Amino acid sequence: MAAPPPIRLGMVGGGEGAFIGAVHRTAARLDGQFALVAGALASTPERARASGQALGLAADRVYDDFETMAAQEAAREDGVQAVAIVTPNHMHAAPACAFLDRGIHVICDKPLAATREDARAIAEAAVRSDALFVLTHNYTGYPMVRAARELVASGALGQVRVVQVEYAQDWLTEPVANKQADWRSDPARAGAGAVGDIGTHAFNLAEFVTGLRVESLAAELSSFVTGRKVDDNAHLMLRFDGGARGQLWASQVAVGNENALRLRVHGAKGGLEWEQEAPDRLWFTPYGEQKRLMTRGGAGSGSAADRLTRIPAGHPEGYIEALANLYVEAARAIRAHGDGGATPDVHFPTLGDGLRGMAFIDACLRSSARDAAWTVLEP
Amino acid sequence: MAAPPPIRLGMVGGGEGAFIGAVHRTAARLDGQFALVAGALASTPERARASGQALGLAADRVYDDFETMAAQEAAREDGVQAVAIVTPNHMHAAPACAFLDRGIHVICDKPLAATREDARAIAEAAVRSDALFVLTHNYTGYPMVRAARELVASGALGQVRVVQVEYAQDWLTEPVANKQADWRSDPARAGAGAVGDIGTHAFNLAEFVTGLRVESLAAELSSFVTGRKVDDNAHLMLRFDGGARGQLWASQVAVGNENALRLRVHGAKGGLEWEQEAPDRLWFTPYGEQKRLMTRGGAGSGSAADRLTRIPAGHPEGYIEALANLYVEAARAIRAHGDGGATPDVHFPTLGDGLRGMAFIDACLRSSARDAAWTVLEP
Amino acid sequence: MAAPPPIRLGMVGGGEGAFIGAVHRTAARLDGQFALVAGALASTPERARASGQALGLAADRVYDDFETMAAQEAAREDGVQAVAIVTPNHMHAAPACAFLDRGIHVICDKPLAATREDARAIAEAAVRSDALFVLTHNYTGYPMVRAARELVASGALGQVRVVQVEYAQDWLTEPVANKQADWRSDPARAGAGAVGDIGTHAFNLAEFVTGLRVESLAAELSSFVTGRKVDDNAHLMLRFDGGARGQLWASQVAVGNENALRLRVHGAKGGLEWEQEAPDRLWFTPYGEQKRLMTRGGAGSGSAADRLTRIPAGHPEGYIEALANLYVEAARAIRAHGDGGATPDVHFPTLGDGLRGMAFIDACLRSSARDAAWTVLEP
Amino acid sequence: MAAPPPIRLGMVGGGEGAFIGAVHRTAARLDGQFALVAGALASTPERARASGQALGLAADRVYDDFETMAAQEAAREDGVQAVAIVTPNHMHAAPACAFLDRGIHVICDKPLAATREDARAIAEAAVRSDALFVLTHNYTGYPMVRAARELVASGALGQVRVVQVEYAQDWLTEPVANKQADWRSDPARAGAGAVGDIGTHAFNLAEFVTGLRVESLAAELSSFVTGRKVDDNAHLMLRFDGGARGQLWASQVAVGNENALRLRVHGAKGGLEWEQEAPDRLWFTPYGEQKRLMTRGGAGSGSAADRLTRIPAGHPEGYIEALANLYVEAARAIRAHGDGGATPDVHFPTLGDGLRGMAFIDACLRSSARDAAWTVLEP
Repeated sequence: MAAPPPIRLGMVGGGEGAFIGAVHRTAARLDGQFALVAGALASTPERARASGQALGLAADRVYDDFETMAAQEAAREDGVQAVAIVTPNHMHAAPACAFLDRGIHVICDKPLAATREDARAIAEAAVRSDALFVLTHNYTGYPMVRAARELVASGALGQVRVVQVEYAQDWLTEPVANKQADWRSDPARAGAGAVGDIGTHAFNLAEFVTGLRVESLAAELSSFVTGRKVDDNAHLMLRFDGGARGQLWASQVAVGNENALRLRVHGAKGGLEWEQEAPDRLWFTPYGEQKRLMTRGGAGSGSAADRLTRIPAGHPEGYIEALANLYVEAARAIRAHGDGGATPDVHFPTLGDGLRGMAFIDACLRSSARDAAWTVLEP
Repeated sequence: MAAPPPIRLGMVGGGEGAFIGAVHRTAARLDGQFALVAGALASTPERARASGQALGLAADRVYDDFETMAAQEAAREDGVQAVAIVTPNHMHAAPACAFLDRGIHVICDKPLAATREDARAIAEAAVRSDALFVLTHNYTGYPMVRAARELVASGALGQVRVVQVEYAQDWLTEPVANKQADWRSDPARAGAGAVGDIGTHAFNLAEFVTGLRVESLAAELSSFVTGRKVDDNAHLMLRFDGGARGQLWASQVAVGNENALRLRVHGAKGGLEWEQEAPDRLWFTPYGEQKRLMTRGGAGSGSAADRLTRIPAGHPEGYIEALANLYVEAARAIRAHGDGGATPDVHFPTLGDGLRGMAFIDACLRSSARDAAWTVLEP
Repeated sequence: MAAPPPIRLGMVGGGEGAFIGAVHRTAARLDGQFALVAGALASTPERARASGQALGLAADRVYDDFETMAAQEAAREDGVQAVAIVTPNHMHAAPACAFLDRGIHVICDKPLAATREDARAIAEAAVRSDALFVLTHNYTGYPMVRAARELVASGALGQVRVVQVEYAQDWLTEPVANKQADWRSDPARAGAGAVGDIGTHAFNLAEFVTGLRVESLAAELSSFVTGRKVDDNAHLMLRFDGGARGQLWASQVAVGNENALRLRVHGAKGGLEWEQEAPDRLWFTPYGEQKRLMTRGGAGSGSAADRLTRIPAGHPEGYIEALANLYVEAARAIRAHGDGGATPDVHFPTLGDGLRGMAFIDACLRSSARDAAWTVLEP
Repeated sequence: MAAPPPIRLGMVGGGEGAFIGAVHRTAARLDGQFALVAGALASTPERARASGQALGLAADRVYDDFETMAAQEAAREDGVQAVAIVTPNHMHAAPACAFLDRGIHVICDKPLAATREDARAIAEAAVRSDALFVLTHNYTGYPMVRAARELVASGALGQVRVVQVEYAQDWLTEPVANKQADWRSDPARAGAGAVGDIGTHAFNLAEFVTGLRVESLAAELSSFVTGRKVDDNAHLMLRFDGGARGQLWASQVAVGNENALRLRVHGAKGGLEWEQEAPDRLWFTPYGEQKRLMTRGGAGSGSAADRLTRIPAGHPEGYIEALANLYVEAARAIRAHGDGGATPDVHFPTLGDGLRGMAFIDACLRSSARDAAWTVLEP
């Protein structure tokens, strides 16, 4: 049977000098499910055009701004079917709405937005639109994260009691000035600091794997570097529905850490541990038995992991593959959307997850402002 | 030069069926600095006598109760010079006072007591007495914990910003009934649950290594097993003097953990990590450089570790050796006490540490009762 | 500046059901440097056509056999510039010669061939041809393998003394019958067993990193599974030029191993360790100092690693990225070849490496047949 | 029931400045089964007396030489029941014979002797004597080594196929001059270099755990440091009875290694891995299942490990405890020897193991002299 043609993809942001846009392009390309055909890649026409040329886009599909792009692509027979939005947080809402409103699927970087108003705008556009909205909380694309979720859902851990999640980095230990750091440490463009940039990942991972929802939290946000306007360290206590309790730590000043995202879940019958820096491994301990090493592609890792596995056990897959898995899931959903078919196994972070993330950031800021008082996550 | 004769040691508690008493005897014996010569080993005369006989003690130095022992040993020319108290928490104060009041040095298991009243009584006795009081927060006896402390004190980490400490076990995941578990889960005998039994270790380790003091904390204590009267999981946020922030997790229901005591300290210039289950290793990262593995006996581990090292790098020393190090330190202090000499390098947990531990437990209970409100540690 | 158009790539082998072909396609696609446009993908016309259609190739560029493909592609203006050969070992020589003789660059899976005659034929064709020959010893594509090589070359280890290399798998622990296992355990199609399939990788890695050449070896090949016609375990001793000594172990019956390729090099001044299953990490110990963890993208990892690094430290890159790095290197060399430019930093395994691998297999078989007598590698 | 009094122990060697003697004394003391009461501790009377005084021995039991000690202790009613011989290798035979001939149990450091003549002399004395001979191949005292042996014996691994064992150190990377290094690098006093000092440990461990015997070996001994008279690196291939094949590596110039003794055993049904530097852990993989972490004191570790376990899982026991376990086993055997009782569970390395070790060293030297030709181990 002939392979379906690649899905026509556009990109907003991700021009020269941007980091995450290039990663998205690589991930989108990995499995041959998408072809990048158009873009509004930068905030000035000159840089937008240079970036488009560098990527080999046709000149008439390199746009100066996303509004023009949305309008013209929607009008083309061969216009983009989906668009990846990889701009800074405060620039998510406008393009997301523009494309959703034209029925073009949106794949948007996380967190959803810099403000709750922006988030609401996206949510309303999504309701109006028939198009899909995919949020790239990329760590949920790791096969062994899927295995962890499946393990919890299977009851192998029993009722979840304790959830420990952390995301530690050290790249903001000292004052940093560059494109990546600048917007991330500007309250207006980022919305929050560590808690928004990486805390949301940790939060999303905890909810994704456990299937539980955080009801309330107590947060102590700190800013250790002189002159920094957003938090660079966040300590949280979590209360989940159903009675589980947790801790979350997000830090960008934890010297000795690169991208140390780590999740541990302990239930009445078992416990599991996963670390992003060794993502093909999942440790599972049934209570009273020996700890077991589950591996991507290895014995008993389960169908949720297997369906996102490209190569055999022992040959590592990494971060790009995880993000690519979300693009693969998006492609499946987009094709099924066209066909009207169902895709019961397909999972990707949704608008709902994005709104949860916004509620999380908001609750963190409110709690921290009230001396870490318990604060309910408001939808 | 002739080795000095061993210090004459007595023991209160630690009779047949007790766990920690046997460990103390082994540790005290390891380096030949102590000889066990007397004991009030159990709460009934029959078991006390059987225990004494099993240990090969002279019949006239096996006592039915600690009061008799204190009185008679103090009266003997060859009476005990020091006593190890290894009873459950609520049975520390009375014997401690009895021996201190007779000028006999006390080596007492942690936490200091089950109640703050008991703790105060010990403190008052210690003030009255010329004898030494040693609290066996044994994890401070590990050489690489000493190296960590020395590293922080040297300024290699810069100003400490973030302290993450945890102690996870899983042996109370289900209801347990045995001698060890019983008293530990009885509020009257233990004072608290996980927070007292292992949380105090984590707290003490954090203060010992950083040289900082926790000013206030927010604590959420949970009891996950039906019918359990004390906490089996504790989540804390910590505020240290000088501005550092931390998290502490103590759990006895964290399936997959044996004795996972782990400390991470992150400062403005460096970070370190240590785990009790691999105690001969200390990871140190100077900011912007490669992570380094420091080992007991290995290159550059420093004099604080070296002076407590028995065998070369790569041949593991363990828990018994760490506790034995406290006995060695105690022996040095006791001998110097007799000589009036100074021992500037000798470190062991003191009454002050014990009182800190009591203040910690108290603050945890008070905070948790007030929905995890920030609570100042009261001396 | 506009990105150059992708290099037009053909493929021989890699049709439906094949494993390694799909991996090559993914790796070739990852960085956008190649576009697959033609193929002779399977050994029967039906399967070849179905495979081509599944990949979305134009019908006129799906060939029934590689001879037709070579002839017709060479005649097209838009014909393939390079071809990837991913057939079983005994099917490498004929297509390699066919394409080399038409001036089309060849990217060939390892080992070079099933017999030394085949290897010679390829070598002669390469001499005749102006085209490049790239052998995909993919492990040399890992950035930290490059860093290891750079470290040795810099003199940081001093003179190399001891080289320990191993590649352990367990997938042939029991008799296996499937497409992958079948040809690999057929002496006529594979040439050798574990020693050819994975031993050559270990051998290549050792020579690549140390810059030394194995002069002679003593080999004990074993076949532990009843009925197996090729070796499934190989034990070797190695003598390198310059006096270094080594051991090599290749096994496909080592239960508990997935793809445990591991290299350790010890010199007069330092030692290093690398493992394929955690490829972003390299351990380096300067003699008398603390062990250091070097990471892909991390501090001090050096330019050889940095130039093959896509994403920041702590976000893992894996096996596909390593193979893709060889495709990237090949693309650089192919473009420079067209320009007549020099590419001093570009490294990829060459025909010379392939011939070394053949000499290695040959020496193993001869040594093992003579009771593991020392045997010189013959060029 | 009253504990039996400690066994009266003497020591030959181990005076001031010696390393291993102090370790033996500590291990002997750990469990209270032995009391050191006499010694011929050094090779000159002055140092012997000073050493005895430093240890607090009675003056009349500090001997100038072992002959006098053997004669006088044998004549005392309260004479030593056992003697620990901790002299350099070439000084084992004479004291061993002197004590065995007087019916005094001998606990002797490994390897058995510096020459096969010496070994034979000990063997003959042992045959003549009723006393026990215990060889302190201390790594067999680790509980998880016992668990590994039990696992193999249980059939859980199926027929053993491949055995990989190595012992890597780096302390002789450069020329070293001190008491420990001097006699170890003198052929006359040590008999051999790395192969004798640590190769014998690796060899013994492999035979102990697998229950197999090495029939023949091929050895390449090297001496990398200029002026060194004995080997500092040894590469071996092993053939076991029953058809298993193995590799052994012993090195004292492997920069980056402290005491990296590591054993891997792979059978038809399972595989195991153990490392001395993390001795409380044993990895076991049943073929086709997930890897499992067995821990000392943990679930399912088996009775062989449990009977040598002092403290709960997660509180590390180390090297001293392992050596102490051999003393505990020796004590059990010595007491049973007196009672005529049987001790079916007691295991310690015997004279037979010592003779195996001598045959191993001898075969290594002979093989290496013949260009690593296969050489049968001669009993």
